[in-house]
Amino acid sequence: MADLKYLFNPRHVAVVGASHKEGKIGHTVLKNIVESGYKGKIYPINPKGGEILGIKVHESVSSIDGEIDLALIVVPASIAVSAVEECAKKGVKFAVVITSGFSEIGNIEAEKEMVEKARANGMRILGPNVFGIYSASAPINATFGPSKICPGNIAVISQSGALGIAMIGKTAEENMGLSTIVSIGNKADITEADIMSYVFNDDITKVIFLYIEGLENGREFMELVKKKPENMQIVAIKAGRSKVGARAVASHTGSLAGSDKIFDAAFKQAGILRAESLEDGFNWVATLAACPKPAGKNVVIITNGGGIGVLAADACEKYGVTLTSDMELLKKTFENVMPKFGSYKNPVDLTGQAGGAEYREALERALNEDNIHAIIALYCQTDMTPLEPLMDTFIEMQEKYGSKKPIIYSLFGGEGTEEILEKLKSKGIPAFGDVEDAVSSLKALYTAYEKRKEEKMDEVEMDEEKIRKVISSVLEDGRKQLLGTEAKEIMAAAGIDVPPFRVVKSIGEAVEVAEEIGYPVVMKVVSEDIIHKTDVGGVLIDIDDKKEVIEGYEAIMRNCRQNVPKANIRGIEIAKMVPHGVETIVGATTDSSFGKVLMFGLGGIYVEVLKDVAFRVAPVSKREIGKMIREISSYPLLLGVRGEKRKDIDSIIDSIYRIGILVNRFPEISELDINPLMVYEKGAKALDARINIEVKK
Amino acid sequence: MADLKYLFNPRHVAVVGASHKEGKIGHTVLKNIVESGYKGKIYPINPKGGEILGIKVHESVSSIDGEIDLALIVVPASIAVSAVEECAKKGVKFAVVITSGFSEIGNIEAEKEMVEKARANGMRILGPNVFGIYSASAPINATFGPSKICPGNIAVISQSGALGIAMIGKTAEENMGLSTIVSIGNKADITEADIMSYVFNDDITKVIFLYIEGLENGREFMELVKKKPENMQIVAIKAGRSKVGARAVASHTGSLAGSDKIFDAAFKQAGILRAESLEDGFNWVATLAACPKPAGKNVVIITNGGGIGVLAADACEKYGVTLTSDMELLKKTFENVMPKFGSYKNPVDLTGQAGGAEYREALERALNEDNIHAIIALYCQTDMTPLEPLMDTFIEMQEKYGSKKPIIYSLFGGEGTEEILEKLKSKGIPAFGDVEDAVSSLKALYTAYEKRKEEKMDEVEMDEEKIRKVISSVLEDGRKQLLGTEAKEIMAAAGIDVPPFRVVKSIGEAVEVAEEIGYPVVMKVVSEDIIHKTDVGGVLIDIDDKKEVIEGYEAIMRNCRQNVPKANIRGIEIAKMVPHGVETIVGATTDSSFGKVLMFGLGGIYVEVLKDVAFRVAPVSKREIGKMIREISSYPLLLGVRGEKRKDIDSIIDSIYRIGILVNRFPEISELDINPLMVYEKGAKALDARINIEVKK
Repeated sequence: MADLKYLFNPRHVAVVGASHKEGKIGHTVLKNIVESGYKGKIYPINPKGGEILGIKVHESVSSIDGEIDLALIVVPASIAVSAVEECAKKGVKFAVVITSGFSEIGNIEAEKEMVEKARANGMRILGPNVFGIYSASAPINATFGPSKICPGNIAVISQSGALGIAMIGKTAEENMGLSTIVSIGNKADITEADIMSYVFNDDITKVIFLYIEGLENGREFMELVKKKPENMQIVAIKAGRSKVGARAVASHTGSLAGSDKIFDAAFKQAGILRAESLEDGFNWVATLAACPKPAGKNVVIITNGGGIGVLAADACEKYGVTLTSDMELLKKTFENVMPKFGSYKNPVDLTGQAGGAEYREALERALNEDNIHAIIALYCQTDMTPLEPLMDTFIEMQEKYGSKKPIIYSLFGGEGTEEILEKLKSKGIPAFGDVEDAVSSLKALYTAYEKRKEEKMDEVEMDEEKIRKVISSVLEDGRKQLLGTEAKEIMAAAGIDVPPFRVVKSIGEAVEVAEEIGYPVVMKVVSEDIIHKTDVGGVLIDIDDKKEVIEGYEAIMRNCRQNVPKANIRGIEIAKMVPHGVETIVGATTDSSFGKVLMFGLGGIYVEVLKDVAFRVAPVSKREIGKMIREISSYPLLLGVRGEKRKDIDSIIDSIYRIGILVNRFPEISELDINPLMVYEKGAKALDARINIEVKK
Repeated sequence: MADLKYLFNPRHVAVVGASHKEGKIGHTVLKNIVESGYKGKIYPINPKGGEILGIKVHESVSSIDGEIDLALIVVPASIAVSAVEECAKKGVKFAVVITSGFSEIGNIEAEKEMVEKARANGMRILGPNVFGIYSASAPINATFGPSKICPGNIAVISQSGALGIAMIGKTAEENMGLSTIVSIGNKADITEADIMSYVFNDDITKVIFLYIEGLENGREFMELVKKKPENMQIVAIKAGRSKVGARAVASHTGSLAGSDKIFDAAFKQAGILRAESLEDGFNWVATLAACPKPAGKNVVIITNGGGIGVLAADACEKYGVTLTSDMELLKKTFENVMPKFGSYKNPVDLTGQAGGAEYREALERALNEDNIHAIIALYCQTDMTPLEPLMDTFIEMQEKYGSKKPIIYSLFGGEGTEEILEKLKSKGIPAFGDVEDAVSSLKALYTAYEKRKEEKMDEVEMDEEKIRKVISSVLEDGRKQLLGTEAKEIMAAAGIDVPPFRVVKSIGEAVEVAEEIGYPVVMKVVSEDIIHKTDVGGVLIDIDDKKEVIEGYEAIMRNCRQNVPKANIRGIEIAKMVPHGVETIVGATTDSSFGKVLMFGLGGIYVEVLKDVAFRVAPVSKREIGKMIREISSYPLLLGVRGEKRKDIDSIIDSIYRIGILVNRFPEISELDINPLMVYEKGAKALDARINIEVKK
């Protein structure tokens, strides 16, 4: 990881390509640096010399006497590489290459060369193809975006320069306080991971707002996120959810979009809040930046209108925000605050007569009540009460209690109401026009602070030697897909419960094995050339005695030779036949961004038709696997329905856990399916498995 | 239905309780009337006399000489009834009773008396407990809300006065043009149905924005909505979605909340767009008010930023908006509009360099291309192009093409961008800050104009006499729940396929019937006292011959007498045993607001665990039943999975259709379940049914 101290806190900066002409990027960057109150020395570089904004222009970087920590490169692409080289040779620590026209349009070589030149002299590069950098700690606004950026505790990191610029504008408009805003551009050198690592420890940032189009190494990203301080939160927008969107991202930045479901799972696992829209993202970030961790789940809605209170209650149910219905608590707290026709039930209805004083009374009581943990304060314009005292109350409450308890406002109405909204926002108070936005933001706050216990990874015993041996023999055989029996051998070696089975090559052996295993047994042809074994008469179930074994052996051989004459028949598998339970599927696959990924679902149509599955990036703790299992809609089937007993969910967890460990220890396992993992009241058995291996060169 | 002409177009008005004191409701209402440019005579009424706002105050309504169409009642509740009576006696046509303190706080008698006094003299009442009325056609703003209301084509009808006031403010703030805004208040007399009927034919309104907390007669409401002009659209917010919300609504207005799922179904069926949040509602209404019906489904996104384009594409997939991927069309339309590193793929990326001219070129090409049916135009602030020409382009495009093709804008950025947004909105152009809002609004437009074919109701033959006879005999018997055999008799009489069955009372008869029906048969005890027949040994399946019938008869009798000694055993049902197909459940229930409601789902866990069911209000056309069936997530199971053939969906439709007709012809059927309706490749059979009857006194 690069130490980015001087990127965010440069002592002296150069603007290479500073322009005399207003409106030019090379001018705007310089102007923004000046206007942001930057305290270090500023060196505009332009061969024409002269002065820009009253600052002496130097003809070249090399001609400068002093030390330079940061150079902003705004020259045309054709001379950017040499400009970077000159900076590197001069000993500049960081170059932010604003210039575009590199890998994003296929000009990969020049970009590579630029990085090599920089690295050769120990210089690091942000970009190319970025809008610059803003850092509140310097302070410095070295972007070509708007000049007015409010300092604060939100770090905005964008993979898209274009969207980043608009985001600066939007945050400024919303009076959102930023600790930094950067775009990663083509990430020729410094990546979002480098930036995030720095931000994790910058002592200003409370919330990171990420805009992501793709992740080349999702796994590293997740590992990185684990290092964030506990009370720092990350909200991410991941574009390319849809198939069309994914295609557009691919053509846009050339980064890998990855499967969206996996991004969802990975973000959840890493504790990153994923917002679907920019609006949600902004709302959540503002709320997380302003509010403390709620001390419990009891939420109270305080309103002056029944209608808007009901809409908020609806939204609470939708988002899973808990409205306390403890009538004693509510009565004790709010009785006599409102007129007789009001209500201290939750939503607490102060009635349309409520003004600043009534809101203050109700809010203070709620804020001082330990068993109320968060407040949604609603105001619906009435024209019955003056707005000024209301606004003053809200601001006063925030100043007095805002750091102790979350209060989120939603104000609905016209003139006057909108102004209060603006005013509250400018004070950093989470306030929204729509109740849904308020509730969704409170939900985000709760989700962000969900307890993330130490994710202990239990040790598991595995017969690794055995597994290695199976894989080697398959590879030697020139195959990529394991036989079902080989896959089951691996499952068993990984400690997963597999009903006893053996491969036999003669009738005599078949009888012997069947008697040893104990009836009833299942018989299956073993051949890599026969995929649909049942269709060709290669499977027999419910074999009850010696006679049936003998007849079965002959029948299977006859059927297979007849139907697939060229098949290489390796023998017949004799396996213990087990009773029916709940069929589940456990799978693992290899994602281009996140690597090994686990899947769980109920067997048959639940997976095939209803697509009722959950994902996690492997390896994953048992606790998280429990969450994964509970995520599917058909989960109640495991709890027992129609008089059935609860199934052994711990056994499923253990099996998935082992698969997670297995695929990470043996990365050559590219695909794996246990189908079905039959689950009982006690235990779970892998009846059939499929494994594909792929050896990376 | 009341003729509300003079409520919306009063020739002369009185304000009963007009106040000299600024800020008082009785003053504000008068002031708003004056300021809204009302052309008729205005009579302020106040016993104190004098002048208010330069208008002569009359001491009483009766002392006025001229005719009065509309009286606004703003006196205290204690004298409101007599004020209303005076108006009625004077011959006033409508009284809008703003005064509150009636049924909403339990004061039901006074409200009733008020209506009686009014009705006795042919006067109609809006309210009590309303904010007044605004009507653009008069024009008159007789509300105590904001004075500035923009005239336009949107009618806002609110069940909540408080929210209504805030909505006036909000619409004014957003420059939304209203044809009218009214709240219904306690609907002592005039209901939302009366208001809607008027608005349907007012020649101004294009979109109705409804805020509903409950409907006393949902069925009448749906019938009413059928009468709306084809190109008029309705957007509704229904509060009380959640259990908590429903409770709050109930305590708030005393209206019935109804089951939310049924509201969803009923609105869908009636072609009403239901918005979940006020924000969505406002966005959709603005879009519907501005845009024409799209001529087809091909949507194109035009953007200057890849990132925001991808977010819009994601939203299109989420909302089911079709982005055209016809490369020939896209190439033909957009080739050469953008720089080389742009893209004419959809999203069409004009690149960050695009300004007013480039947008004009791209938009005009799209607007003139017949195979592009709607446009989402995105702008992401760049600081590379001036904003003014961009805004001019957008306004120009709207003026030139806005009535021919939907164009929806989303602009993302800070200062400047926000101003364009405001400006566009003030011109009635659908423009949003967030791409999700733009896409969700376009989706609403598509949904609103979905083809609603003539919903033909086929005639069906039913043996009504038979059905009546069964019901009568059950009632005579003093029962409310039908025996399974009685329920199946009704099913059969309704024309639903029921496997042959008969009730027998002796072994001889049992054998005779079994042989007649043909083996295999099922035998079941018939008794209203035995609910769980299987548990007590009252059911035998797979009866294959005479011997088994005899043994079975004896076994069932023995089991039942032993396990439920006091049961009234009416005999044993012998029914044809039919093969297994896909189990479905068809149900009907009686909703307090919508009356007879139909339900469909797949049998077993799909209904019980996954709650995968769809509702419709009965009776309903076969086309709509088809939609209902396709709505459930397990629908693919009916299309055939895992090599199975498609099931006979038409037979399900026919069965549901008949149930819909049945429960409406026999409203005493309060609950009905066919469980299962076994569906085959050809045909569907009702194997078991349950019917409850309830006779309304």
